[in-house]
Amino acid sequence: MITLIKGGTVVSSTGRTTADVLVDGEKIVALISPGASPFGSIDADVTIDATGKYVIPGGVDAHTHMQLPFGGTNASDTFETGTRAAAWGGTTTIIDFAVQRYGERVQDGLAHWHELAAGNCAIDYAFHQIIGGVDDDALKAMDTLVDEGITSYKLFMAYPGVFYSDDAQVLRAMQKATDHGLLTMMHAENGPAIDVLAAQLAESGKTSPYYHGIARAWQMEEEATHRAIMLADVTGAPLYVVHVSAKQAVEQLAAARDRGKNVYGETCPQYLYLSLEDQLGARSEEWGDFEGAKWVCSTPLRSREEGHQDAMWQALRTNDLQMVSTDHCPFCMKEQKELGKDDFRAIPNGIGSIEHRVDLLYQGVVTGQITLERWVELIATTPARMFGLYGRKGVIAPGADADIVVYDPNGHTSIGVGKTHHMNMDHSAWEGYEIDGHVDVVLSRGSVVVAEGEFKGTTGHGSYLKRDLSQYLV
Amino acid sequence: MITLIKGGTVVSSTGRTTADVLVDGEKIVALISPGASPFGSIDADVTIDATGKYVIPGGVDAHTHMQLPFGGTNASDTFETGTRAAAWGGTTTIIDFAVQRYGERVQDGLAHWHELAAGNCAIDYAFHQIIGGVDDDALKAMDTLVDEGITSYKLFMAYPGVFYSDDAQVLRAMQKATDHGLLTMMHAENGPAIDVLAAQLAESGKTSPYYHGIARAWQMEEEATHRAIMLADVTGAPLYVVHVSAKQAVEQLAAARDRGKNVYGETCPQYLYLSLEDQLGARSEEWGDFEGAKWVCSTPLRSREEGHQDAMWQALRTNDLQMVSTDHCPFCMKEQKELGKDDFRAIPNGIGSIEHRVDLLYQGVVTGQITLERWVELIATTPARMFGLYGRKGVIAPGADADIVVYDPNGHTSIGVGKTHHMNMDHSAWEGYEIDGHVDVVLSRGSVVVAEGEFKGTTGHGSYLKRDLSQYLV
Amino acid sequence: MITLIKGGTVVSSTGRTTADVLVDGEKIVALISPGASPFGSIDADVTIDATGKYVIPGGVDAHTHMQLPFGGTNASDTFETGTRAAAWGGTTTIIDFAVQRYGERVQDGLAHWHELAAGNCAIDYAFHQIIGGVDDDALKAMDTLVDEGITSYKLFMAYPGVFYSDDAQVLRAMQKATDHGLLTMMHAENGPAIDVLAAQLAESGKTSPYYHGIARAWQMEEEATHRAIMLADVTGAPLYVVHVSAKQAVEQLAAARDRGKNVYGETCPQYLYLSLEDQLGARSEEWGDFEGAKWVCSTPLRSREEGHQDAMWQALRTNDLQMVSTDHCPFCMKEQKELGKDDFRAIPNGIGSIEHRVDLLYQGVVTGQITLERWVELIATTPARMFGLYGRKGVIAPGADADIVVYDPNGHTSIGVGKTHHMNMDHSAWEGYEIDGHVDVVLSRGSVVVAEGEFKGTTGHGSYLKRDLSQYLV
Amino acid sequence: MITLIKGGTVVSSTGRTTADVLVDGEKIVALISPGASPFGSIDADVTIDATGKYVIPGGVDAHTHMQLPFGGTNASDTFETGTRAAAWGGTTTIIDFAVQRYGERVQDGLAHWHELAAGNCAIDYAFHQIIGGVDDDALKAMDTLVDEGITSYKLFMAYPGVFYSDDAQVLRAMQKATDHGLLTMMHAENGPAIDVLAAQLAESGKTSPYYHGIARAWQMEEEATHRAIMLADVTGAPLYVVHVSAKQAVEQLAAARDRGKNVYGETCPQYLYLSLEDQLGARSEEWGDFEGAKWVCSTPLRSREEGHQDAMWQALRTNDLQMVSTDHCPFCMKEQKELGKDDFRAIPNGIGSIEHRVDLLYQGVVTGQITLERWVELIATTPARMFGLYGRKGVIAPGADADIVVYDPNGHTSIGVGKTHHMNMDHSAWEGYEIDGHVDVVLSRGSVVVAEGEFKGTTGHGSYLKRDLSQYLV
Repeated sequence: MITLIKGGTVVSSTGRTTADVLVDGEKIVALISPGASPFGSIDADVTIDATGKYVIPGGVDAHTHMQLPFGGTNASDTFETGTRAAAWGGTTTIIDFAVQRYGERVQDGLAHWHELAAGNCAIDYAFHQIIGGVDDDALKAMDTLVDEGITSYKLFMAYPGVFYSDDAQVLRAMQKATDHGLLTMMHAENGPAIDVLAAQLAESGKTSPYYHGIARAWQMEEEATHRAIMLADVTGAPLYVVHVSAKQAVEQLAAARDRGKNVYGETCPQYLYLSLEDQLGARSEEWGDFEGAKWVCSTPLRSREEGHQDAMWQALRTNDLQMVSTDHCPFCMKEQKELGKDDFRAIPNGIGSIEHRVDLLYQGVVTGQITLERWVELIATTPARMFGLYGRKGVIAPGADADIVVYDPNGHTSIGVGKTHHMNMDHSAWEGYEIDGHVDVVLSRGSVVVAEGEFKGTTGHGSYLKRDLSQYLV
Repeated sequence: MITLIKGGTVVSSTGRTTADVLVDGEKIVALISPGASPFGSIDADVTIDATGKYVIPGGVDAHTHMQLPFGGTNASDTFETGTRAAAWGGTTTIIDFAVQRYGERVQDGLAHWHELAAGNCAIDYAFHQIIGGVDDDALKAMDTLVDEGITSYKLFMAYPGVFYSDDAQVLRAMQKATDHGLLTMMHAENGPAIDVLAAQLAESGKTSPYYHGIARAWQMEEEATHRAIMLADVTGAPLYVVHVSAKQAVEQLAAARDRGKNVYGETCPQYLYLSLEDQLGARSEEWGDFEGAKWVCSTPLRSREEGHQDAMWQALRTNDLQMVSTDHCPFCMKEQKELGKDDFRAIPNGIGSIEHRVDLLYQGVVTGQITLERWVELIATTPARMFGLYGRKGVIAPGADADIVVYDPNGHTSIGVGKTHHMNMDHSAWEGYEIDGHVDVVLSRGSVVVAEGEFKGTTGHGSYLKRDLSQYLV
Repeated sequence: MITLIKGGTVVSSTGRTTADVLVDGEKIVALISPGASPFGSIDADVTIDATGKYVIPGGVDAHTHMQLPFGGTNASDTFETGTRAAAWGGTTTIIDFAVQRYGERVQDGLAHWHELAAGNCAIDYAFHQIIGGVDDDALKAMDTLVDEGITSYKLFMAYPGVFYSDDAQVLRAMQKATDHGLLTMMHAENGPAIDVLAAQLAESGKTSPYYHGIARAWQMEEEATHRAIMLADVTGAPLYVVHVSAKQAVEQLAAARDRGKNVYGETCPQYLYLSLEDQLGARSEEWGDFEGAKWVCSTPLRSREEGHQDAMWQALRTNDLQMVSTDHCPFCMKEQKELGKDDFRAIPNGIGSIEHRVDLLYQGVVTGQITLERWVELIATTPARMFGLYGRKGVIAPGADADIVVYDPNGHTSIGVGKTHHMNMDHSAWEGYEIDGHVDVVLSRGSVVVAEGEFKGTTGHGSYLKRDLSQYLV
Repeated sequence: MITLIKGGTVVSSTGRTTADVLVDGEKIVALISPGASPFGSIDADVTIDATGKYVIPGGVDAHTHMQLPFGGTNASDTFETGTRAAAWGGTTTIIDFAVQRYGERVQDGLAHWHELAAGNCAIDYAFHQIIGGVDDDALKAMDTLVDEGITSYKLFMAYPGVFYSDDAQVLRAMQKATDHGLLTMMHAENGPAIDVLAAQLAESGKTSPYYHGIARAWQMEEEATHRAIMLADVTGAPLYVVHVSAKQAVEQLAAARDRGKNVYGETCPQYLYLSLEDQLGARSEEWGDFEGAKWVCSTPLRSREEGHQDAMWQALRTNDLQMVSTDHCPFCMKEQKELGKDDFRAIPNGIGSIEHRVDLLYQGVVTGQITLERWVELIATTPARMFGLYGRKGVIAPGADADIVVYDPNGHTSIGVGKTHHMNMDHSAWEGYEIDGHVDVVLSRGSVVVAEGEFKGTTGHGSYLKRDLSQYLV
């Protein structure tokens, strides 16, 4: 089947051009100047008019947690509901985290994740591997990850007793990663210290959601970020720090880059827009000051007065942070977040944003925080390069998968439950946000999955992507 | 006329794809997956087989000085000889510097430069404007530069009495630049201080070329770089520092970027490969230790022991430097460089590299200093974006000018007089350098200008390019 | 004559001890534990009871400008009135600046300064030499400064046409200073750039005193500070930056120290307490918004919102700034400051603080900004060491000049005209400041000059001090 | 008993003066200008002629480990032998570390240390407390330390299973320290990571002493230093890092100081003079390449090529490091060091330097690395201030303990077994070092303990010193 996207402005990470994009089956096969003579008219099965609109590579969300078990419950989006919401929002690839926890076998965790995802996804998906317990068995399992198409794995310097690795374990895992070219992803917070601070707050009666952010002080993110960088330095491992939210953590990343290290980081929409002060002020008739639980995530929201949000935008401009993921990890208020009603430590950590990342970042173009090209780079091109999907994903070029978004800069998007919301959550962390742009058409491997305000995809269309080694390292 | 470049690996700054590139007249009109069905076979007038080779955008050399008057002589390449050598080396666009000196009118300098270039170029050319004397008249002249297609201009913090602007002048020019969106380019060396040091050396009998580099201490480059950054800070002007050679200057650039400033820099091949120690050791039967005059340029070659060369490569990897230009400013030893036989201060400053930049940087790919994608970014894509040529130049995409290089990674290039040398110089600064790659075919706006080891272009083919504002600023 | 100061707490820069201080003639001859047996009772001519009080070395104010010609007028304190006010405030040594301006001979300037001071001072005095015009003659004159007892000199990077030295001149002077061990003092502001900004403000009608601070942006202080550091680096000259007020300038000093350089700086009371916002808000019935002229000084008052004042205190604590001087340069509002009524550029620059430095810094002890020992170090010990007076001044020890202050921590001092004010000014920059402490008794070379709320000294008691080379360099 | 030290140059941390020092019993009671009239001649029981010599406060060595149990053996100096050697070398106060290890009670460890020291010391002594196992019981014990005269305690980020505290423990201890004003001393190395590296080296057959230094990479010191700083930041605790040896660790300390934090550090003579390369090259007939075991200490000797030693000297000059201790922890080669003959991990860690610190640092004065005043500050004044002994120790002033060293700059000291060596070791880490100066006379609390090349002190003369809170914090 031939699909032709006509007359749009194709935007890449370096610039824009007016070109028709020709899709044959699942692949882009040509970019053509409109009206270029050698071909005559092309006889397409489907023609999409993109005049006045942007044609961009489908979003790649490199950090999602469908069905993640956490704090006695599970993230509320299944691969089915989560990938459908992703498609709605212009994201055509997710990289989810297969989970191994201490005492489990990596292979089992991975196999289980394949079971959860297979046949359930509306868009293509890949996996990182969480190694929640670094021991000889887990290190051995790392030998085969590249063959499985998993070229990155995540460690946690937080959550002792759940996912936590101590420094000896981090070191050993990084050495193994260096052997195989795996990219080490790090949740960089000093968990043992944070847990002491959190316990002291809770014991002194400071139990509301706000204190989640107080306990997880920026010093503890900065510290762990630096520690991860030095462990990477001594092992030669490339490093990618997830969900960076503290400006001082960015300074550590920038300093490492200035020393020539392969050290990278992502931030998430919540750290660009939301703040600790917002969380403190949040209260509703239904939930009182527990309303703030909606934004309990780790790393936490940071103080706007201290300038963290501005620092994140700046770092996106200067490439001290390289990309934006969601850390999509949705929990409902009912029965999930409310587990921590009496103690913020029991609130499941996570925010659902998978549907809104492309839009929320586009709003940064509207407000002048980033350029149009940088938008494409942050949401699609660099994620694809960073995690070994480039060529197939992240670019509009012949040979690439036809994962394409037609984005209308004259459209509008209202975010919120009862509006655009398709995630399996009883609330939105982004209720009331308004976007001066709109995801009009979404193609996944050549198939239209969203168009005319309707979901046209199918559960199970999404395929598992074996990833190459990172294409971003220097 | 239809030209088809078949089967090559098209390399962009973010990745590579296998695609045929279709050229109609002067423009690229399509990128097509080889064998893609919708078109049947394309009936091209000219077909170039690029199988096993890289297809890259033609090089953009953003810093050249054809016929520059300097020290009582003129740079030895005319626009004719210089642009022909550029074409030989895979560069299809140059941005030369129109010259205004103190006491002259900017308009006259620019008009003169148009005269020198018009009808003489083998490839396309654009201009920056040197403002060598900032006064009310010159500031007024800056008002019309954008209309002339000149969106960047250069100031000198060195060369008092010739090109030098004091800080008051720099400030006023930057304010004007901010008004119009002009990019300020800066020769950042503390000229007044350097001139004292140079005079003291010469007066104490230290007159050989080596002392050129001693006088121009890295501290004086670092200092001026910082000063330019702060003057830019107080005026809001974007800043681009030319020919960066000191690692401490790079640190200043990186620090400014880390503060979110629009501050950028280029380095040149000589600062990547050549050193002050090389210059000290250079002697020949013909020239004795005056041999070192071949490498007298400003900023000067730096000490390898101090690590400047490694720092330049590192900065290219981490994007603390954004691109590589040549600062092509050739002088012959006979009758030109030898003007300074008795006093290094009288040696015309400059090295000729326009023919070898693409090759010399490719050798960095071979040795693992940079990736293939970064090579393309450094020599073509970023120069085009930085100086408002992107879309036309710097990218292989429909709608772009068909400035294309077919580069053979299995070829070989020997640099030196009597070998590949086409610049109008009686020596080569790069004598004996061997490159594990080869510029095979070069197209300029659709015309083959180099192929089969022959120059096939024509003097006068090159057109003047009016440039847009920088497309690289954040 | 034997004087005994009994029972006080002698405070040094490292600690405190209870000791009687015995003075014989002009010198301290012993420190004795009260009641120590070997001596029996000492038969003193004068006994001063210091029980419950601090006994500290007399203050050394290393930056004063008596009678300085500036802007067509002269600083309003003569050596007679200024040194008397100093004594009132616990300062027993001043280092004033002998002035040479472009076109004058250094020797003449120095001789004139000796004439102004000789026989007129209530306390001891020494000189730095201002070199306002670096030429061959001035450089030659620098050869004899050490013999004159002048071991430091000042250059200006501001005030083009008056005191300004360009970078070539600074370099040459620093080289000469290195030859002789002279300490280079620097007024570090980019004068040429500031003058452009000031002219633009004035021309656009922004003529009130507040715009003095706007024109002299912190970027221009930071820039010049860095430049001075790099010129010092390339010449090997030790450097001392005067009247530091911008936190970013302190960062440059700290960075230079972290690189091991002999780079030091002072701040002044006004940069610790007063702010640009205060100046903006100042208005009176008599002067309207010209009231702000009282605080026109250079470097200017800085924004409190930007945190400069806090940064100065912090730097005093961490020794990133080494001492506090006044930059005492008083002008009356009538007939002097009002010269700039229509244009802030014509306001004579300067604040009078010589009488209040010891008290204002003591208030920092009271509020916990600095320790008691650090107070002594900042106002007396380090100034003496920095400028080659230690041993004679700056310390309570046998052999030292008996320049001693008995300071009462239970006393109180109200600053202001009609209160403690003794400077020859028609206003006080410090009107209304209240100090929780009091200068009770002041001795200058063994003579009581202030006691019982009366001035008991004599004009002409003060002697010229030939200084040794700096005793502070590493 | 009256003792008079006549005619010497009394050196303090800020300068020098010629003064007689009068001692009555255990105390200094007066400093007197020689020949000062009011006293006539003083009738002393003992007169010491210090003409041409320096009179300085007795050395304070704030880091010693007498009899420390380590690796199955004990440090070879008892309090008797160790303090006697200290006295020989001009050190009159030590602060040793009382030891608590995991599973022991702090009180018991402290009581045991009192038993070891009481009645056995030639000079005065004080204690820090090692907390080797932070639990509720240990935290409770910290409440009473100040009353015991112990105002500082040490944690270890290295030696898991022996002294190691994890970050949660460090945090809790720092909080407790903040409550009581205790100074936290930190062994800052990432022990868990180092132990992995060490095990890997040993398992691959790299078992010689040299690999001790390879395993303990500077990255692991830098990392732990930064981590300690951030944990101190979040708790408000002042921090003192022991035995700093890596230049990057100093950079972290300097950066913290530049942010205004109460963060300090010591280095030791071995990090100033000895290097990893020296250790690699060491071999003897008796020990072969196990000779290097003599210099196995932690932190380890660092690479000279990387510039660590120069960086330590520089930091001493700029006060980025505040003082020098020995970390005296002697082990004999026979039966002790040789425990690790087959595996460097079993070599007891430590070097004996207590006898040579004053001399080794004086040699830095001779070579121009530090000033005479800085020498006194580094070895006596700052250690006393840092650890709450100033007033009694660290200064020549009335009221201070008469702990005095007469140091002869024209004397000479040859270090080595069979020469000046008095430590209980079968070798010297400093064999062959020659010092251009000599400890002539040493007084401890008024008693001559070393004179005329003989030890004249008595075991048991030394008293336990209850310390005040640190007098150095800002």
